[in-house]
Amino acid sequence: MAPPSAIEVLPETDTSTFTIPDRLTIQHIAKRRAASGKLIAGVAAAADVGAFKSRTHHLHKHLAKRWDHRLTDESKNRGGSSLKEAAKFLKQGGLISLGGGLPSSEYFPVEEISFKVPLLNTATEERHATLTAGKHDMIRGTSDFDLATALQYGQGHGSAQLLRWLVEHTELVHNPPYADWSCTMTVGNTSAFDMALRMFSKRGDWVVSEQYTFPAAVETAAPMGVRVAAVRMDEGGMLAESLDEVLCTWDERARGGPRPFLLYTVPTGQNPTGSTQSLQRRQQIYAVAQKHDLYILEDEPYYFLQMQPYTGPNAPDVPPPASHQEFLSSLVPSYLSLDVDGRVMRMDSFSKVIAPGTRVGWITASEQICKRYSVHADLSTQNPSGVSQMMLFKLLDEQWGHGGYLDWLIHIRMEYTARRNVILEACEQYLPREVVSWKPPVAGMFQWLRVEWTKHPDYPRKTLVEIEDELFHANMRHGTLLMKGSWFCPDKEVDTGKMFFRATYAAAPLEQIREAVRRFGAALREAFEMVALADGAA
Amino acid sequence: MAPPSAIEVLPETDTSTFTIPDRLTIQHIAKRRAASGKLIAGVAAAADVGAFKSRTHHLHKHLAKRWDHRLTDESKNRGGSSLKEAAKFLKQGGLISLGGGLPSSEYFPVEEISFKVPLLNTATEERHATLTAGKHDMIRGTSDFDLATALQYGQGHGSAQLLRWLVEHTELVHNPPYADWSCTMTVGNTSAFDMALRMFSKRGDWVVSEQYTFPAAVETAAPMGVRVAAVRMDEGGMLAESLDEVLCTWDERARGGPRPFLLYTVPTGQNPTGSTQSLQRRQQIYAVAQKHDLYILEDEPYYFLQMQPYTGPNAPDVPPPASHQEFLSSLVPSYLSLDVDGRVMRMDSFSKVIAPGTRVGWITASEQICKRYSVHADLSTQNPSGVSQMMLFKLLDEQWGHGGYLDWLIHIRMEYTARRNVILEACEQYLPREVVSWKPPVAGMFQWLRVEWTKHPDYPRKTLVEIEDELFHANMRHGTLLMKGSWFCPDKEVDTGKMFFRATYAAAPLEQIREAVRRFGAALREAFEMVALADGAA
Repeated sequence: MAPPSAIEVLPETDTSTFTIPDRLTIQHIAKRRAASGKLIAGVAAAADVGAFKSRTHHLHKHLAKRWDHRLTDESKNRGGSSLKEAAKFLKQGGLISLGGGLPSSEYFPVEEISFKVPLLNTATEERHATLTAGKHDMIRGTSDFDLATALQYGQGHGSAQLLRWLVEHTELVHNPPYADWSCTMTVGNTSAFDMALRMFSKRGDWVVSEQYTFPAAVETAAPMGVRVAAVRMDEGGMLAESLDEVLCTWDERARGGPRPFLLYTVPTGQNPTGSTQSLQRRQQIYAVAQKHDLYILEDEPYYFLQMQPYTGPNAPDVPPPASHQEFLSSLVPSYLSLDVDGRVMRMDSFSKVIAPGTRVGWITASEQICKRYSVHADLSTQNPSGVSQMMLFKLLDEQWGHGGYLDWLIHIRMEYTARRNVILEACEQYLPREVVSWKPPVAGMFQWLRVEWTKHPDYPRKTLVEIEDELFHANMRHGTLLMKGSWFCPDKEVDTGKMFFRATYAAAPLEQIREAVRRFGAALREAFEMVALADGAA
Repeated sequence: MAPPSAIEVLPETDTSTFTIPDRLTIQHIAKRRAASGKLIAGVAAAADVGAFKSRTHHLHKHLAKRWDHRLTDESKNRGGSSLKEAAKFLKQGGLISLGGGLPSSEYFPVEEISFKVPLLNTATEERHATLTAGKHDMIRGTSDFDLATALQYGQGHGSAQLLRWLVEHTELVHNPPYADWSCTMTVGNTSAFDMALRMFSKRGDWVVSEQYTFPAAVETAAPMGVRVAAVRMDEGGMLAESLDEVLCTWDERARGGPRPFLLYTVPTGQNPTGSTQSLQRRQQIYAVAQKHDLYILEDEPYYFLQMQPYTGPNAPDVPPPASHQEFLSSLVPSYLSLDVDGRVMRMDSFSKVIAPGTRVGWITASEQICKRYSVHADLSTQNPSGVSQMMLFKLLDEQWGHGGYLDWLIHIRMEYTARRNVILEACEQYLPREVVSWKPPVAGMFQWLRVEWTKHPDYPRKTLVEIEDELFHANMRHGTLLMKGSWFCPDKEVDTGKMFFRATYAAAPLEQIREAVRRFGAALREAFEMVALADGAA
């Protein structure tokens, strides 16, 4: 039991009626584009993100907090690429440049790229469209983006063409409540986290995160000498009172480092627990972040894997959202949408909703932070692949548009709902409830399974870690691979006293998910010396 | 004048007859592939680089030097991604994995990608081919690589499919003289340099480089607290005796940092000077590196922009290389090909020979260094874009093959030769030799132009930097942009006493290159108060 929290924690209530204030609509975006005219953005063009945001929506908003006092020397001293800045001289009319060392696009040995993509909700029989990018579509006037531009050098923030779409999408979904928010592209959230650490952390620092968290985050931080302090969780994710307690009781000497400044969290469909923070939970945690002046790294690859409610094995499914507005309103609000101070860097990814291999993501944060990020990108990762950017531009901007992408996200939502329902039904059918328990996840791709290891015949002769390892190998002997919960503990010294396994329902065919759960049940019954299920029995 | 060198420096002689010993041939690669059977490499497969190298070629070679004593804490402490390592359990037959959090490829909204690419040296009328990748070509047996794999998560070293080709190409061109060399992909040389610095450098360190060098390299190092010490150059690039002198006379106290360990160099078509180090020069510099135990970062984006000899304005052009072997033998050997110790990380890029927007490059170094690199990539940049990798695989492996790629490189060589000849002829026609001089570059995309600023009417009343700035703006007024030489000085305190401008012949149409040089000549004549050329006069 945690000691009483130092802050007032609101009780958690139903969040389903919350909507983002003044939400932008797809129609607004279309109007703004029409009013602002054709996008002119040639080779390595610097993008004016402000022009992609709705001005009227921002007039009443204040500016973000500045973070100069928290930036590392490395980040503060980044001046960006001087040669890229020499591009400012190119604006003079009639100028012939022998300046930039860019190869001529006539030597790009790719004349055209085509992408065959699905159509959703079409009236016709046609289920696919083929989208084609040529080398000189911009000169020909047939597209705002072409291969001569996409395959050329670019800016750290990515192409203006795709960035415009990302900014619009971000405003549509999150409408950040301060004026000077911005977006800049990344080569994925793992790289974004690496770069954020270099922006804000030095050797000896600590980051706070969930007591079970994404190991790659811990492993990214560790070589930089940055450690992860665990915050307790319940089924609704990180506990605000535990976060407050960790910070209030921080012992700089015992920890060998100052009180943490960065909070790293996966608020939705968290990896590995599958937990999703409710709106109230987010508000509570944000309040703790304000109290201790934390900066929040919101890692949200699973945000659009929020699912329909689970109704149980024999109840009818909940129909899909009836409109884009209903879909957007069904999403739990992001930290970004609550971020009145500009203390959130939201990391968005296409990995779970388009494909991981694009290696294109983006961050949303204050202009100051986005600028620190993009000048770093200019001198490290540069822009994400132009081939990937072209694929996403053709699909998201030219073919689907914002509405079509929401249709796709609704489709993915229903697919994941079906997959989650399959694993839950298999759990109910095959797992011995005496020793294993679980909750239906509302988002993400993970089913978190708690095993009552103290009922194991070897308890207390063997430790949790020993029994967990035996169960892992027992699963393997029965032909199924589940991840050990202990692999996800950032702070090996914190003993949760509980044992978990992580199962994903994202990838395997439905029949194999059922079979894998059946095998897990058989392995558990064997290990716990329980009566085996009869073949095919429930 | 430099003091006498502490090492014996060999005189420079003709290098045209040097060939890489025991050079692998394209026929060998084809045989090895046939013998090793089909490449089986599924989702995020770990690649066995050793299997892509010729065993017989390596039997007599020794192992690379180890660099444990030089690796940073960050690099030494990188364990890689534990979740990716859990993939080892997947080898068990019949296993159903609910382990890895990978999305199902059925939710990748791209069914097919096609690339229209040029064909070279074809017997038929057809000048282009369209290469198509489908989602499940590997299961269907129609390709070694497909979209279900390329668009999925990958390994830090990139896909086995493309990596195989890169390893073969590297052996074909460089045949590194130690046994345990390896390759791993990068998201480009800028990122590779950033990651190399984090592997080997700490705040306060110095890197040695050319006295005129790539500003982005200096700007990548500066925020990390790493400074660049200038080594003098002549028309053949960095001077070995100057490098030795800098290291022998290093004053740790005056410099505020230890003697440099990293040598960063662009040996071929150097940016900005266009200089190319001869084989002898490279041997001399390598000997200095051995003497002082330096590690060499060989940045080689322009390696394949080596050109045919310049024959002068009215002499017949030199015909293209008659065979692949003749082409390969015409290339000045790389540091990698001389690297008996394993003290070179070669950074290769497709930016100048395919397209910058691919954001795919690779390094070649010892296994130890490649492993340090790829475990960092696993937790930052991850793999390069799968869409880019697929484009390169289809083009380079499935369509062109190694021979076809060499044909393409010969084509590029002849194109750059023609461009270089145009700028040289324009220089001869339009520039006042009294105040400007130049040498024909043998590689790269830059013409380096020396201006005799001491002949300027304002000398000595104005400084070099002032006169350089006036000339820059005079050029702009005449409608041409050239880069200031001083922008490329890493060490602002070293006064070379010389003034240069950099012009590139890579990008502008040929007629505009001529016109830009004419304008530069007019600007110089005006600034130096010389008689203007009559219209159209030579």
